Amino acid sequence: MPLPTIEWIGVVDGRIKLIDQTLLPNELKYVYCDDIESIYNAIKTLMVRGAPAIGIAAAMGTVIGIKNKNAVNFESFFKQLKEVTSYLGSSRPTAVNLFWSLKRMEDTALRNSDKPISEIKDILLNEAKTILEEDKEICRKIGENGENLLEDGSCVITHCNAGGLATGDYGTALAVIFAAVEKGKNIRVYADETRPLLQGSRLTAWELKNAGIDVTLICDNMAAHTMKTKKIDCVVVGSDRIAANGDAANKIGTYSLSIIAKEHNVPFYVAAPASTFDLSIVSGDEIPIEERSPDEVTSISGNKIAPDDIKVFNPAFDITPASNIKAIITERGVINSPNTENIKNIIGNKP
Amino acid sequence: MPLPTIEWIGVVDGRIKLIDQTLLPNELKYVYCDDIESIYNAIKTLMVRGAPAIGIAAAMGTVIGIKNKNAVNFESFFKQLKEVTSYLGSSRPTAVNLFWSLKRMEDTALRNSDKPISEIKDILLNEAKTILEEDKEICRKIGENGENLLEDGSCVITHCNAGGLATGDYGTALAVIFAAVEKGKNIRVYADETRPLLQGSRLTAWELKNAGIDVTLICDNMAAHTMKTKKIDCVVVGSDRIAANGDAANKIGTYSLSIIAKEHNVPFYVAAPASTFDLSIVSGDEIPIEERSPDEVTSISGNKIAPDDIKVFNPAFDITPASNIKAIITERGVINSPNTENIKNIIGNKP
Repeated sequence: MPLPTIEWIGVVDGRIKLIDQTLLPNELKYVYCDDIESIYNAIKTLMVRGAPAIGIAAAMGTVIGIKNKNAVNFESFFKQLKEVTSYLGSSRPTAVNLFWSLKRMEDTALRNSDKPISEIKDILLNEAKTILEEDKEICRKIGENGENLLEDGSCVITHCNAGGLATGDYGTALAVIFAAVEKGKNIRVYADETRPLLQGSRLTAWELKNAGIDVTLICDNMAAHTMKTKKIDCVVVGSDRIAANGDAANKIGTYSLSIIAKEHNVPFYVAAPASTFDLSIVSGDEIPIEERSPDEVTSISGNKIAPDDIKVFNPAFDITPASNIKAIITERGVINSPNTENIKNIIGNKP
Repeated sequence: MPLPTIEWIGVVDGRIKLIDQTLLPNELKYVYCDDIESIYNAIKTLMVRGAPAIGIAAAMGTVIGIKNKNAVNFESFFKQLKEVTSYLGSSRPTAVNLFWSLKRMEDTALRNSDKPISEIKDILLNEAKTILEEDKEICRKIGENGENLLEDGSCVITHCNAGGLATGDYGTALAVIFAAVEKGKNIRVYADETRPLLQGSRLTAWELKNAGIDVTLICDNMAAHTMKTKKIDCVVVGSDRIAANGDAANKIGTYSLSIIAKEHNVPFYVAAPASTFDLSIVSGDEIPIEERSPDEVTSISGNKIAPDDIKVFNPAFDITPASNIKAIITERGVINSPNTENIKNIIGNKP
C-alpha cells in the first residue's frame, strides 16, 4: 500500500510554493508566496493549517521576509528579522509551534551573528529546510511510537486533520494510523467532518481514501451515537499546544469528543511533537483561544446557511483536560496518564 | 414582544398548503400538495419536519389521500384508508407522532363506520384540523409547564428545531423559551446549527431572531466549550419518540449534548407532547433509527464538501438515555427524573 507524503510546501526559486488547502478536495492548486504578506495571509486564511505545518510555513516565511532586506550590520539585520517574526507571529494565536519555529529562526540568527548578513540568510534558509526535514523524521517516530497502541482490526475516530497536510510528512494523529497500516494491520477510521471549516471531510477523508484506508465520514455530532452503536477502539487527535500539565488545545470539538470518549470508556490519545508542548504555561487555562469570523459558520462555499446578521460564537479551538487523555504520543515516546511529572520526564527542557 | 405562530400548514381548497422548510431562511415559499405522493415526499424530504408537525401533516395527508377514493361500503373504504395510512407511515421511521396521528385517523373512521362515506370524509377532515388545533393548545401548555424551570436571565442551549415550524403553535422546546419571555423573563439562547441539515441555523436561529430573542449560533461541536466558558443554565430539546422508561429519540447530536451537559452539571430537559411517548416499547433500544442519504453530509446547497464516493454514516437520530434527562416537560405536567413509574403516573394510557 502506498502511504502518502504530500509535498504541500517547498521553497522554489526564492518563493514559497504551497497547496491552497481551502480548495481541497475539489481542486489541487499550488500558490506561490514571494512576500511575507502573502505567507501571513496563507496562514491566516488556513491555506496552510495544522500546528507543525504552520511552524514550517512560518520558518520559510521568515526567510522570504528577510530575503530582500538590506542591513549594514547584525544589529539592524536582527531588528528587521524581529519585525518579520513578530508580524508572522500575529497570524494565529493558538498553535505554539508557530512561536517555537519563529524563535528557532531568531536563535539561529543570533548564534551566527559574527557571520556576514548574506551568509546568515543562507543559514536561515537551511534552518527552515531543516525544520521541514526534522518534522518528517518526527512524524515517522510518532507513527512508530503510536502504532502499537492500535491492534489489528481496530476502529479509530479522528477529528480535524492531523495528517500529511498538517505536517512535513504523514501527520501526527494520522501517522499513528498510517504506521499501523504499514505494519500490515487492518485499521478502519471514522472521520469527524469538523465544522466549521470541514478539515475532516475535505482533508482527512481525502488523505485516508487516497491511501486506500477504510474511512467513513460522520458529522461531529454523530460521534457519540457511533461510539454507542459501532465498535470504536480509540480516538486519536493532534494538538496545537499542550500545557505543562498535559491540557491540550486542539481544533474546536476535540474537548467534546474527549468527554464522549470518556463516557463510552474509549481511550483518547493525542499525538503531537515535542514542539507542541508549552512548558511555560501551567495549564490549558492560559492558552489563548482564537475566535474567527462568523462567516465561517453562516456560509459554506459562498452559500448562506443562516439568517442575515445572526450573532455567532466561533472559537477555533478548545482545551481537552489532561484527565481526559489516556496518553500523549510524541517522537520521544508515549506519555501515559499525562501530568506535569510524566511530561517533564519525557519532554524535559524543550530543544 | 410579538411571539411567533407560523401558519406553516393548512388545508386550502382541498389541497395542503405548507412552507417548504428546506428553503428557509433564504426563501419563504409555500407549496401545495394535492395527492399523497406529494405529501409523502414533503415529509420524506423534510419540507415538513419535527415530530408533532409530521403528525399534523400526515393527518392532513390522509384526508387528501382518501378524498377522491370511491368506495361502496365502509369495509372497502377502510381498506383504502389503510393503504393511505400505511403508505404515509413508511415516509419516516423514527417519530412516533406520525404513527399516533395515522392511528387516530383510522380510529376516527372506525368509530364512524355506520355513517355514509362522504360524511366520514368530512369527519376525517375535521379530525385532522382538530389534531392541529389540539397541538396549538399543547404547545401553550408545554410552555406554561416548562417556563418556570427558566429563571430570569437564564441562558439556554437548544439543538435542532423544536419551535413553531415543528408544531402547530410555538413549539415544544422553544415553547418553554417563548413562554418564559412572555412572562417578561430575559432569556438568551445558544442554538446548535445541527448538522447535517442545519435546522438549528436555518430554522431555530431564524424563529428566535424574528421573535426578538437574543440568539447566538454555534456549531454542534462548540457546545462543550460554550458550557465550559459561558454561563449556561440548561439545555432544552424536543423529542421524536420517548420509550416507557424515558429514553428519548431526538435529532442526531442530542445524545452527545446530553453527555456534555452531564459533564458540566447543566440540567438537560426534554419538551414533548404526550403523543411522543411510545409506552409499547420498554427502552430506547427498540426505537428504529432512520439512516439518510450520504449526500446530506457530503454536499451543502449543491456544493460538494467531501471527496467523491466517500463512505458516510448518516443516522438522523440518536437516543438519549433517561438517566441523562433531568425532566420531561409535557402538556400534562413535568416528569422529574423520568423512569417507567414516573412516566406512567403522568402519561398513563395514551389517549
